[in-house]
Amino acid sequence: MEDQQKMMSLSPREVRQAVREGRWAGPTAGMATGFVQANLVILPRDWAFDFLLFCQRNPRPCPLLEVTEPGDWEPRGLAEGADLRSDLPRYRVYREGVLTEEPTDIRTLWREGLVSFLIGCSFTFEGALLEAGLPVRHIEMGVNVPMYVTSVACRTAGRLKGPMVMTMRPIPAAMVARAVTATALFPSVHGAPLHIGEPDAIGIKDLSRPDHGDPVEIREGEVPVFWGCGVTPQAVLAASRPPFAITHAPGHMFVSDKKNVDLSVF
Amino acid sequence: MEDQQKMMSLSPREVRQAVREGRWAGPTAGMATGFVQANLVILPRDWAFDFLLFCQRNPRPCPLLEVTEPGDWEPRGLAEGADLRSDLPRYRVYREGVLTEEPTDIRTLWREGLVSFLIGCSFTFEGALLEAGLPVRHIEMGVNVPMYVTSVACRTAGRLKGPMVMTMRPIPAAMVARAVTATALFPSVHGAPLHIGEPDAIGIKDLSRPDHGDPVEIREGEVPVFWGCGVTPQAVLAASRPPFAITHAPGHMFVSDKKNVDLSVF
Repeated sequence: MEDQQKMMSLSPREVRQAVREGRWAGPTAGMATGFVQANLVILPRDWAFDFLLFCQRNPRPCPLLEVTEPGDWEPRGLAEGADLRSDLPRYRVYREGVLTEEPTDIRTLWREGLVSFLIGCSFTFEGALLEAGLPVRHIEMGVNVPMYVTSVACRTAGRLKGPMVMTMRPIPAAMVARAVTATALFPSVHGAPLHIGEPDAIGIKDLSRPDHGDPVEIREGEVPVFWGCGVTPQAVLAASRPPFAITHAPGHMFVSDKKNVDLSVF
Repeated sequence: MEDQQKMMSLSPREVRQAVREGRWAGPTAGMATGFVQANLVILPRDWAFDFLLFCQRNPRPCPLLEVTEPGDWEPRGLAEGADLRSDLPRYRVYREGVLTEEPTDIRTLWREGLVSFLIGCSFTFEGALLEAGLPVRHIEMGVNVPMYVTSVACRTAGRLKGPMVMTMRPIPAAMVARAVTATALFPSVHGAPLHIGEPDAIGIKDLSRPDHGDPVEIREGEVPVFWGCGVTPQAVLAASRPPFAITHAPGHMFVSDKKNVDLSVF
């Protein structure tokens, strides 16, 4: 295994190479700074149309960065020469909606016709928040972002339906507008907030008890701001129980060759 | 038939009603000002995944506003209660890539499993250009926008491939930046320009001879500015010859209930 310090200094291609060769199997947070990291969902062709439709209809929680041809494991639009079967540090395999294994390589599990979806992750827009001088509390606290299963329904698509999952970041009231504009520039990585203040109105009873991730401190004068969360498609898939699916393991993302700034509309 | 003056004063729902009842079969330009109009492509389910993938990979020429479930003719996300089989003034039917008829209603042609794609059209962003005080020459001249088949290739998707078609609008050099920002706000209706100046570099030999539409005057001090064009998917489909396809007839768009401002990222 490489040490973490060394991994942090590598280019996206070098990170993928280290992962592919089994020299790294840990999380990718903080690696290849400035480059887009992505969530992965792999489905049989029979389910791929429904899922593509679901993402098209729910772009805030499920912003698509790349979809492969059936059977193809190279995400050409994000990284030439990459191999989605080996270049993520850890995967999760689901059979009939049940998590059955967490391998570091899925070459032996590959089947004809599998379609891979790469979905924007909040690392990119958190970079934009930090650059805009905004606090990102869970990063300050060294914990996971708090995620809430809300009462807002996703638009259904074929066999796929479910509630929208949102992340929350507390923002000082005077800086909320800046948080909106900074993230609105990045529609392909969740974009602008979906809800600002009033957690009750989206079915959140207790901010200190998130459904996923960790609670974070909300200080005097701060407003809870909610964004679409990439956990949404995984929650929806788990509920819909396709016969076979593979995702990345949480935090173990695909590191692409695309720069964060390439995703900005300006 | 209603007279044109009256049609111009109707709400989107009233326009669709008039069209559905056979009281209007003409173009929709200028109707329901401020509301989104859309291009239509209808394909059999077998081709729908490829086309959805094509649009995902080529969002500038093919910005998807809505995709229906297979067999469903109601574009719920754009207009509750609308019927895509009757609510556009005129359609084009293609069999094996050949245009065979131009009906005003396709209810008798409807088949199980057809998937409808509604694609952003430049009416919305031309509104944004006009509001930003920019000239739109073809509107001033009362002609169609000039369109060019460029040497820029679309990203292929399954059986679909082809060149990108772009529209051109001449913009005074001092206002080009404003044209960029005004349209970048609308990524779901072609977004920012793809190319500014230097038509040679994208394979355009003679601006006065567009491949579709009409030539427009380029005045001293103006720069040709090129945007992705919604004719691209139709050109690609014509080249790929699916067994059956239906599109809107040029200029005879779907008038939705969504407001143009709803498509702005800010």
